[in-house]
Amino acid sequence: METENILIKNTIILNPKENKIVEGFKGDILIENNEISQIAKKDEESISENGIDKIIDGKSKILMPGLINTHTHISMNLFRGLADDMALDEWLNDNIWPVESGLCVEYCHAGASLALIEMIKSGTTTFNDMYFYMENVAEATTESGIRGCLSYGMIDFGDKEKREKEFKENINLIKKYNNSANGRIKTRFGPHSTFTTSKELLERVRKEANKYNVGIHIHMNETKKEIDDVVEATGKRPFEYLEELDFLKNDVLAAHGVWLSKKEIEIIKQKNVNISHNPCSNMKLSSGVASIQDLLSKNICVGLGTDSVASNNNLDLFEEMKFASLLQKVDTMNPTDLTSDETIKMATINGAKALNLEKEIGSIEVGKKADMILIDKNSVNLNPMSKIVSSNLVYAANGSNVNTTICDGKILMENKNLTNLDEKSIIEKANKAIKELKN
Amino acid sequence: METENILIKNTIILNPKENKIVEGFKGDILIENNEISQIAKKDEESISENGIDKIIDGKSKILMPGLINTHTHISMNLFRGLADDMALDEWLNDNIWPVESGLCVEYCHAGASLALIEMIKSGTTTFNDMYFYMENVAEATTESGIRGCLSYGMIDFGDKEKREKEFKENINLIKKYNNSANGRIKTRFGPHSTFTTSKELLERVRKEANKYNVGIHIHMNETKKEIDDVVEATGKRPFEYLEELDFLKNDVLAAHGVWLSKKEIEIIKQKNVNISHNPCSNMKLSSGVASIQDLLSKNICVGLGTDSVASNNNLDLFEEMKFASLLQKVDTMNPTDLTSDETIKMATINGAKALNLEKEIGSIEVGKKADMILIDKNSVNLNPMSKIVSSNLVYAANGSNVNTTICDGKILMENKNLTNLDEKSIIEKANKAIKELKN
Repeated sequence: METENILIKNTIILNPKENKIVEGFKGDILIENNEISQIAKKDEESISENGIDKIIDGKSKILMPGLINTHTHISMNLFRGLADDMALDEWLNDNIWPVESGLCVEYCHAGASLALIEMIKSGTTTFNDMYFYMENVAEATTESGIRGCLSYGMIDFGDKEKREKEFKENINLIKKYNNSANGRIKTRFGPHSTFTTSKELLERVRKEANKYNVGIHIHMNETKKEIDDVVEATGKRPFEYLEELDFLKNDVLAAHGVWLSKKEIEIIKQKNVNISHNPCSNMKLSSGVASIQDLLSKNICVGLGTDSVASNNNLDLFEEMKFASLLQKVDTMNPTDLTSDETIKMATINGAKALNLEKEIGSIEVGKKADMILIDKNSVNLNPMSKIVSSNLVYAANGSNVNTTICDGKILMENKNLTNLDEKSIIEKANKAIKELKN
Repeated sequence: METENILIKNTIILNPKENKIVEGFKGDILIENNEISQIAKKDEESISENGIDKIIDGKSKILMPGLINTHTHISMNLFRGLADDMALDEWLNDNIWPVESGLCVEYCHAGASLALIEMIKSGTTTFNDMYFYMENVAEATTESGIRGCLSYGMIDFGDKEKREKEFKENINLIKKYNNSANGRIKTRFGPHSTFTTSKELLERVRKEANKYNVGIHIHMNETKKEIDDVVEATGKRPFEYLEELDFLKNDVLAAHGVWLSKKEIEIIKQKNVNISHNPCSNMKLSSGVASIQDLLSKNICVGLGTDSVASNNNLDLFEEMKFASLLQKVDTMNPTDLTSDETIKMATINGAKALNLEKEIGSIEVGKKADMILIDKNSVNLNPMSKIVSSNLVYAANGSNVNTTICDGKILMENKNLTNLDEKSIIEKANKAIKELKN
């Protein structure tokens, strides 16, 4: 972890900025401190090895930006496999909530740490999280070395006292952790949804977000029932309701967006709201299919998310990319929809845009933060490497093909070995936590 | 490869015969020659280590039957990433067929060998294949150590001369290879589909299949267009047409079954026809969604298949299980459909039944062939191991979690290392083959 510069030599570079892989683009990349300081195209430029602390041979690798997961609840990694194949009510009321009510600082830290390892191993270097005990998520994220956008999940159901507590929690998180860990941690407000919060909470979130200059993370239009409930309560569909409250701006990340009316899509477009698409969770919970191709055709910014492992059940964005693309193709019955290039953009540069971080991350460019992963080109499931590298990465790869993960200029995994987290002890702690929670 | 017996100790055993995992079932398994000779439940029985050639510590592993892929074209592994995100006509006419026409014995062997490695590494021990140059697929399968049901893809488009050649090819395959490689290779007839073969071909296939006592592998009801074409040509939907020809029996494996009328489902049920479900391929090519839950509710036997990597683009049955379950849940909007237990059955015992091999393979039982895999229980994406092992295997695992693959009593991969195939040289040959094919 003490290297000040890293030279990655002779690697294939996949860059979503170019909209598709620059075929055969090979070169060297120099990382200094936590930034990309030089990119040299093979046979045109070269970077001197003098004074380099660490050299990585990229010959049998593909280098790409670290993936960006725009919707998670990472402490819920404890709940993997706890309950599945159930109707939403039974799943939540009888299985998730009873266990969730026993959560504490220590358990949340264990769950979050387990998730952070899973993300590092499968190539994710930034995640956007909403949950409880977020100070512990911030601590675990700081230890892990990856980048997190953290928000406290605020729920008031119209209760004024609860509302005050929720703001206190979220504002404490912002004051204590925003831009901490060398800028790796950003904070946001996390109003849970339009059906679990009051008008007062939502209006105040907008004011406080402006005041603290942070973004907003909210669940929107995930299920049909939720739409019906909001229409009944407010007379408006969720995005219409939020527009009326002057809530919507480019700093809002709306997770799901499965059930959207034409008018709502128009609002999303006009207000530059960002959407996080979560295909696995939407499929597993039978929520429905989001019309992503439709949103993309209107130039709405869509990032990719896994949601929590309780409804996925992993954090593998490579797998999520395949689900996103294939689900769209069968939903529209058009195989040309959501190409592998478009899907890679969703998981990288568009994820960065969705979190207003595109100046820092999401592509391999000089001056951006050094967040990148190296994929094993010689994996049997990635051969032949015929024509389109993005095709193999989206349709044939999985997170286990990631060999090396670098975030903020630090090597967090090299040759599949973690450099700074103790996998064995964290797995033990997580198993112990869920065992105790169930008792 | 020379061990005559193997003792796997202290492992968790997942057995689809029980319909769900016997929670906490731990024990030892003894393999003698190519069969399971003893299963001892921990603390009740024990198996002596005396005279054992090879002992495997199963303590941090989950043991389950090797997975069964009921629809493949393994030589097409050469075409991974060759062309994607295209309409079917453009994909086939301009991309797949021109390259396919240049195939030869050597190239097919390279593609098949690549696929065989991919299957061994991701836990598949039996596959059901249809393509050309099948003698080379048989040779590659023999070398690999796994189990293959092989059929030659017969197409005549009504041409009598072509028809004779097709029968000659398929019958040669049967005569030369049926029950070869210690019984690991079975052969079948492979009439490609009802829209690429004549009535005469289909009628003769039924007669010859009865004569040679082999099964039949055919594509059925994959696309809406195909149904329309068959209805136009014959006045009947595909399964109605085959029923009229007296073609349908329990020895028929019909791949896809996406577009089925109520009457056709009734025919499938009455004739005990077996279906291979291929969710990834059906999604990627925008073919549609097969109503698997509906078939299962009628006790129709459904196995799982990947189709070729040209339309998938990998052979990972763990990933395919997740696609199958999640696709069904979002299609029916019922999260209780296609549970993880049902999906594991599809990929194991029901795959065996679909290929009429349930007496030999598909579950862990004394007297069955020793086809099994060991999964790394300590993988971060499989923790916590909360309650239902099948949930983690279907929803959270991928093929890279497979640690050890045993087929016909031989260890083909141990601790992720192949024992009998040269991965590096096969990957090189496959890349060379597709490069030459494209020129």
